[in-house]
Amino acid sequence: MAGQNRIRNAQLRSKIMTADQAAALIPKGCNVGMSGFTGAGYPKAVPIALAERMNAIHAAGEDFKISVWTGASTAPELDGVLAKVDGMELRLPYQSDPTCRKRINAGEMDYLDIHLSHVGQFVWGGYLGKLDVAIIEVVGIREDGSLISSSSVGNNKTWLDCADKVIIEVNHWQNEALEGVHDVYYGTQLPPKRKPIPILSASDRIGETGLRCDPNKIIAIVETDAPDRNSPFSPPDENSRLIAGHIIEFFGHEVKRGRLPKELLPLQSGVGNVANAVMEQLQNAPFDNLTAYTEVLQDGMFNLLRSGKMAFASATALSLSPEAAEEFNRDVAKYRDKLVLRPQEISNHPEVIRRLGVIAMNGLIEADIYGNVNSTHIRGTSIMNGIGGSGDFARNSWLSIFMTPSSAKNGAISCIVPMATHVDHTEHDVQVIVTEQGLADLRGLSPKKRARVIIENCAHPYFKPALNEYFERAQKYSHGQHTPHILDEGFTFLSEWQADMTARDA
Amino acid sequence: MAGQNRIRNAQLRSKIMTADQAAALIPKGCNVGMSGFTGAGYPKAVPIALAERMNAIHAAGEDFKISVWTGASTAPELDGVLAKVDGMELRLPYQSDPTCRKRINAGEMDYLDIHLSHVGQFVWGGYLGKLDVAIIEVVGIREDGSLISSSSVGNNKTWLDCADKVIIEVNHWQNEALEGVHDVYYGTQLPPKRKPIPILSASDRIGETGLRCDPNKIIAIVETDAPDRNSPFSPPDENSRLIAGHIIEFFGHEVKRGRLPKELLPLQSGVGNVANAVMEQLQNAPFDNLTAYTEVLQDGMFNLLRSGKMAFASATALSLSPEAAEEFNRDVAKYRDKLVLRPQEISNHPEVIRRLGVIAMNGLIEADIYGNVNSTHIRGTSIMNGIGGSGDFARNSWLSIFMTPSSAKNGAISCIVPMATHVDHTEHDVQVIVTEQGLADLRGLSPKKRARVIIENCAHPYFKPALNEYFERAQKYSHGQHTPHILDEGFTFLSEWQADMTARDA
Ligand SMILES: CC(C)(COP(=O)(O)OP(=O)(O)OC[C@H]1O[C@@H](n2cnc3c(N)ncnc32)[C@H](O)[C@@H]1OP(=O)(O)O)[C@@H](O)C(=O)NCCC(=O)NCCS
Ligand SMILES: CC(C)(COP(=O)(O)OP(=O)(O)OC[C@H]1O[C@@H](n2cnc3c(N)ncnc32)[C@H](O)[C@@H]1OP(=O)(O)O)[C@@H](O)C(=O)NCCC(=O)NCCS
Repeated sequence: MAGQNRIRNAQLRSKIMTADQAAALIPKGCNVGMSGFTGAGYPKAVPIALAERMNAIHAAGEDFKISVWTGASTAPELDGVLAKVDGMELRLPYQSDPTCRKRINAGEMDYLDIHLSHVGQFVWGGYLGKLDVAIIEVVGIREDGSLISSSSVGNNKTWLDCADKVIIEVNHWQNEALEGVHDVYYGTQLPPKRKPIPILSASDRIGETGLRCDPNKIIAIVETDAPDRNSPFSPPDENSRLIAGHIIEFFGHEVKRGRLPKELLPLQSGVGNVANAVMEQLQNAPFDNLTAYTEVLQDGMFNLLRSGKMAFASATALSLSPEAAEEFNRDVAKYRDKLVLRPQEISNHPEVIRRLGVIAMNGLIEADIYGNVNSTHIRGTSIMNGIGGSGDFARNSWLSIFMTPSSAKNGAISCIVPMATHVDHTEHDVQVIVTEQGLADLRGLSPKKRARVIIENCAHPYFKPALNEYFERAQKYSHGQHTPHILDEGFTFLSEWQADMTARDA
Repeated sequence: MAGQNRIRNAQLRSKIMTADQAAALIPKGCNVGMSGFTGAGYPKAVPIALAERMNAIHAAGEDFKISVWTGASTAPELDGVLAKVDGMELRLPYQSDPTCRKRINAGEMDYLDIHLSHVGQFVWGGYLGKLDVAIIEVVGIREDGSLISSSSVGNNKTWLDCADKVIIEVNHWQNEALEGVHDVYYGTQLPPKRKPIPILSASDRIGETGLRCDPNKIIAIVETDAPDRNSPFSPPDENSRLIAGHIIEFFGHEVKRGRLPKELLPLQSGVGNVANAVMEQLQNAPFDNLTAYTEVLQDGMFNLLRSGKMAFASATALSLSPEAAEEFNRDVAKYRDKLVLRPQEISNHPEVIRRLGVIAMNGLIEADIYGNVNSTHIRGTSIMNGIGGSGDFARNSWLSIFMTPSSAKNGAISCIVPMATHVDHTEHDVQVIVTEQGLADLRGLSPKKRARVIIENCAHPYFKPALNEYFERAQKYSHGQHTPHILDEGFTFLSEWQADMTARDA
């Protein structure tokens, strides 16, 4: 390992132990707050050791589960291993792990799907129970005992402030030069003592570079040397390219009409391939001096920083492909004045998002013809990932854009539906919907007008006739004509598509 | 009339004319921004004159409609008369008028149901089109041409800033002593120039007492002498008393556990009788030095101010019963240092609501067993009123409470349903649900746990078995077990209740 100089506080060196020893200190049934946001900066060793310990205990016929709180999604080494051994009682506030998802949807574990900006205040308020243990990945510990976050900040500050006991993972793979990239704000308070968050532009630094931590709470330090397990991005497919194209054309149009400044407004870009594709395509778009006020920095945005198209990005995590992560790690110094990583309490703060006038761009699972968006549930019942920060951004942004391919499952299922089977973003919060077919600008449109433009511009041609037919029929038979629906049909479209899919497959 | 001294700017006196003359200046097809918020401070004469003019023009076989933008709901003299003559093309952002509602639900007029805090930025952004005319009720015009709002501020500032032409109604019935009660903030900007809103407590004054208005835009001044047409509050019925009791007991419990300060946090209280009953009951609750950061000041809150239980209230409108309005009008001076009326842009600002840690209390039409709330649509298709400010408050509050009697229509319809027919407040935004049956604290509960406590604590005993049966069956047959549903049944519960209601009536 790269040496003791990562742990510059001599007194704390006595706490160094193995992951197994640290995992043994975690009591059954406790609430554990872990670092990690969108596959970045999560602890790499202790969760694995804990899963092994759980496995052994389970094999002996005893029960052993914990509740796991994080920043957002993590990786197989955390969510994956703990879900595999059925070691989680409860998970919050966001996940995207296949095994974890399976357990939740089988009813085997509880999941709290919370707005990311709500987590801090819920924990401080005590509404989620007591936080027993924090497990935080850092790049190093300074002389004064303060900690340097690694590739994400997430809820690290909240966990360290609130937990009874703290386990630190010092990851030697993460670049020490990350020191100085983070901006940890210690000015938050509980009401009635809250003050304005003094951020006036995405690049404002308002805090400290390190995380404060009472050394007496630290019960273990574990050294690791492993990369974040981020998946590579697929090169943008045709659909993503088309979606990105529609959005960029729309931006151009808004700038021309004087409705957006020529450097746009700070961008928030959700997770996934489509979001990444939009960033990739901005590389060649006629907008300069872009900024981002977002959660995750993916490859596309990283490239914009590198090329100089983007002047500054504020995020809470780096969600880079292995190649981009290697490169970033090599060249951190170059990016130190173009990038800040903040606690998610601040990256997702309604006050700041509203003030900066963020342009929010997030994915969706289904949108109904009236503009209600489901971004969490398959068939209204199975969780996909969670709402994440999409609600913080969509509600408080200057412009809220939702994007999706017009159909899923190889064209079998329309992502534009008569009625959403679950609603995460209401008709009041969705201003633009974009699919590869086109873009629907819903601002200023009443429900029936929204229906016409969503079906016309966004639906896949295969599903357009059925959607139009439903909409026409609803206007004939609906009880009320503000938002015409035929409720008796409920969600029969789902079974019809299922039948259709089966027939087509045969 | 009480005299010219209400119009202290001599030059503007030349613009005085009759309501008919003023109404004749409003072109067909234009967008008109009117004052008025929850039955307070709306223009009393020009809309009536305009409706008469429309009627005559319609009788002559010609078309004449306008789009009407307001602060929130108004009264029969505005929404009522214009809807009766079919004079509105479009209405936004909130209404609660029976005739208006009927036209919207018959598909005869368009309605844009918008978060109140979004209206200002949509108008400034130009997304709702050009504002042609503003019609604003004031108590007077000062020497310098600035205007004194009457019993509401609402969107007055935005309308005056953005409209091409302005018509003023000077209402002699409204007390001149209202001067000094308003606080109009001129520091708002469009992004990227926005600065923090410098409110740190409900009582902070950050603006001017008057509304600025370019005198060259004023095309007419009409004098009126008529009270706001507010409806009296019914004395709290048994259900309201029980709901209020549950909430107050809950507050007591939270204070005891150290989760709320003993003077609580600033209260936001929605419109209607239940909301009013909660305020009435706080009169005898063991909390002192209460404050409010809310939209409307109803009788209950007024009584708290009078008795000294409440130290300060910030609102955008006075929605008082005729008796309370008389009394307030008589004694304005007494309340000038206990009350501020702000533009709704500020009363509903996400930044301020979040900072102050508001306790939001709003009504609902139906809540489903997983905590999704419908507060706008009857049977998912007919608009009742609109979302108003409930989304601004619920999402950004410290604590979001929704309340309703457990059943509607004389017990025929359960307000707790398997699946909401429309969602305005998502599962992520609803922390407490209260009916006369009891209170469900949903914080920290996963969907199935929420279902158990909502059915158990909130549902009416008559509907409990059916809801439990649905929930049990959903857990058997649902595709996913995160949020179990039987989608094929759609909303069949609605037709069952209808049949049941018919049978019971027979
Ligand atoms: C909505 C969301 C799942 C879309 O993800 P994505 O990667 O852009 O989109 P994809 O098209 O790859 O869809 C993801 C999966 O959902 C499936 N899916 C999408 N729409 C579907 C639909 N209408 N019905 C059934 N399945 C659907 C896809 O088939 C895919 O499944 P697979 O992985 O089994 O192939 C994702 O954006 C998300 O989790 N959003 C909520 C959180 C969020 O917005 N975060 C950003 C701020 S933190
Ligand atoms: C939801 C809301 C309509 C409830 O109003 P309320 O006056 O507290 O409650 P009521 O019980 O009197 O219900 C109002 C009407 O809806 C009907 N209703 C309520 N629940 C119903 C249901 N589940 N199914 C059918 N009708 C229902 C009532 O019967 C009543 O109808 P009526 O006037 O024909 O008798 C009202 O709070 C609202 O408009 N909320 C949205 C805006 C808001 O929250 N504003 C506050 C901040 S601006």
